[in-house]
Amino acid sequence: MSAKLTILGCHSATPRTSAHPTAQLLEIQNRYFLIDCGEGTQVQLRKYKIKFSKIKHIFISHLHGDHVFGLIGLISTFRLLNRETELHVYGPKGIKEFIVNQLKLSQSFGKYPIEFHELSSTESELIYEDSKVTVHTIPLKHRVYTNGFLFKEKIGERNLNISIINKYPEIEVCDYQNLKNGKDFTLKNGAVISNTELTTAPKKPKSYAFCSDTVYNEAIVSIIKNVDLLYHEATFLEDKIDLAKTTKHSTAKQAAQIAKLGRVNKLVIGHYSSRYSDIERFKEEAFPVFPNTELALEGKTFEI
Amino acid sequence: MSAKLTILGCHSATPRTSAHPTAQLLEIQNRYFLIDCGEGTQVQLRKYKIKFSKIKHIFISHLHGDHVFGLIGLISTFRLLNRETELHVYGPKGIKEFIVNQLKLSQSFGKYPIEFHELSSTESELIYEDSKVTVHTIPLKHRVYTNGFLFKEKIGERNLNISIINKYPEIEVCDYQNLKNGKDFTLKNGAVISNTELTTAPKKPKSYAFCSDTVYNEAIVSIIKNVDLLYHEATFLEDKIDLAKTTKHSTAKQAAQIAKLGRVNKLVIGHYSSRYSDIERFKEEAFPVFPNTELALEGKTFEI
Repeated sequence: MSAKLTILGCHSATPRTSAHPTAQLLEIQNRYFLIDCGEGTQVQLRKYKIKFSKIKHIFISHLHGDHVFGLIGLISTFRLLNRETELHVYGPKGIKEFIVNQLKLSQSFGKYPIEFHELSSTESELIYEDSKVTVHTIPLKHRVYTNGFLFKEKIGERNLNISIINKYPEIEVCDYQNLKNGKDFTLKNGAVISNTELTTAPKKPKSYAFCSDTVYNEAIVSIIKNVDLLYHEATFLEDKIDLAKTTKHSTAKQAAQIAKLGRVNKLVIGHYSSRYSDIERFKEEAFPVFPNTELALEGKTFEI
Repeated sequence: MSAKLTILGCHSATPRTSAHPTAQLLEIQNRYFLIDCGEGTQVQLRKYKIKFSKIKHIFISHLHGDHVFGLIGLISTFRLLNRETELHVYGPKGIKEFIVNQLKLSQSFGKYPIEFHELSSTESELIYEDSKVTVHTIPLKHRVYTNGFLFKEKIGERNLNISIINKYPEIEVCDYQNLKNGKDFTLKNGAVISNTELTTAPKKPKSYAFCSDTVYNEAIVSIIKNVDLLYHEATFLEDKIDLAKTTKHSTAKQAAQIAKLGRVNKLVIGHYSSRYSDIERFKEEAFPVFPNTELALEGKTFEI
């Protein structure tokens, strides 16, 4: 089962015709998680042919407009499309009032239920779990209360080695689940066949960490350690490191340093300030610190 | 002084990559009035190279999302651009809470003042007036409280007929303003020269009426009578007249009937439902009733 990240928008707040604010879609274990929802996200979802009905969980990092102003439009469109499936929205305390107040004033409540999961902890916490996937918060340091999100597959079942299993007529289909769960098999004669002989290890679970917006903060390294893919904001280059500090954003180099400290497999950077016309410079700055860095680009897909 | 209407978006609510929700910019007497502000309007303003700083007055017809969800983004961008000029927002009672609640929760208050003019009257009323222009509401009948807006130039000063004036050495420059105001001129010998000999009539004041969204409603005819340009919503064709009634929208034919009854110069229709792939059908339906009908199209400009 592959996991895949699609960039719907990757620029900071200033509006431009060719630069959408933050929104991403993570497909993992057949779940479709929308991460942040800047203005125009619903149109970006249409553009990249992502079915609205597949989205059941939306994660909002913080309440700055370039990460959330598209949410009310998407929620309203779900209503127009006669959605009935429950929607879960995870975001900072206040997000419920933010949305419900608009629905009330525009008299636009839909028939489908919306469950808001309001976050206020400053420690990493488990906010979503099902049989295949967990989501934890990554507390970030920005001008307002902000979380990143760590998406992890659970360790799957072991894979049956059928050619070996078939050598043991005593092993029946009803025993397979125990084998998948890692149990050894005991023959009638008392001999024990090791599980590692009968199965192969499950694939390494995939993991994705989303970190936007934040000042350089090594405290997140222990949370994002060894992830397959890290998205870390890089609003500025080092030439504006003072501005990065005062606005609580990061530079491309700092994003690369976090990736290096976290020993992640791949880094994707984005949230570029509109002051930079050539975003290749972000990659050039990150590369010497962390070579496996790629630029977020609208419509680009990263296999995890 | 020409007046000009630019269509920034002219479709109804369902989001599509090529169809923006309602927003228009009216330039009249060097005033820039933004009318409605669906999601993505700020990007449309950028696309059509309209300077954000020129917009000082925004008129919102009603609080349905496809007419207002872009307002918070635009207001936030004004802050990012360090706007200091006061902004006036005219719209239904509740619009202040709608916007201020979001600014509060996203901690995004700007330095520039925003004055909200909340409307609740069901009678047409004067809501804006300066030396050159007036704006009146046009009460509409929709599912929520809705106003259209009537923009009118004031009658200008009369134009001096300098070649005639120069024949009378007694008329000095300091008399010109009286002539522009329509006064006759009395020579020292007591002879009176009629103002109509010395001046020509001012140009006919321009007028524009914006009507969206509304069920067919002849009560507006007396308000929009004889306007140069009428925009009237046409969400449906006659094949969906029942749906038009229940959703409180109009058909193309009904829009044409209002234009005919109002003896307007030109009709522009828009707010097309996404169920119609060929919008030429709207024009075909309106034409037999009111031939001088044009389709609203994104980016299209109408000289008034």
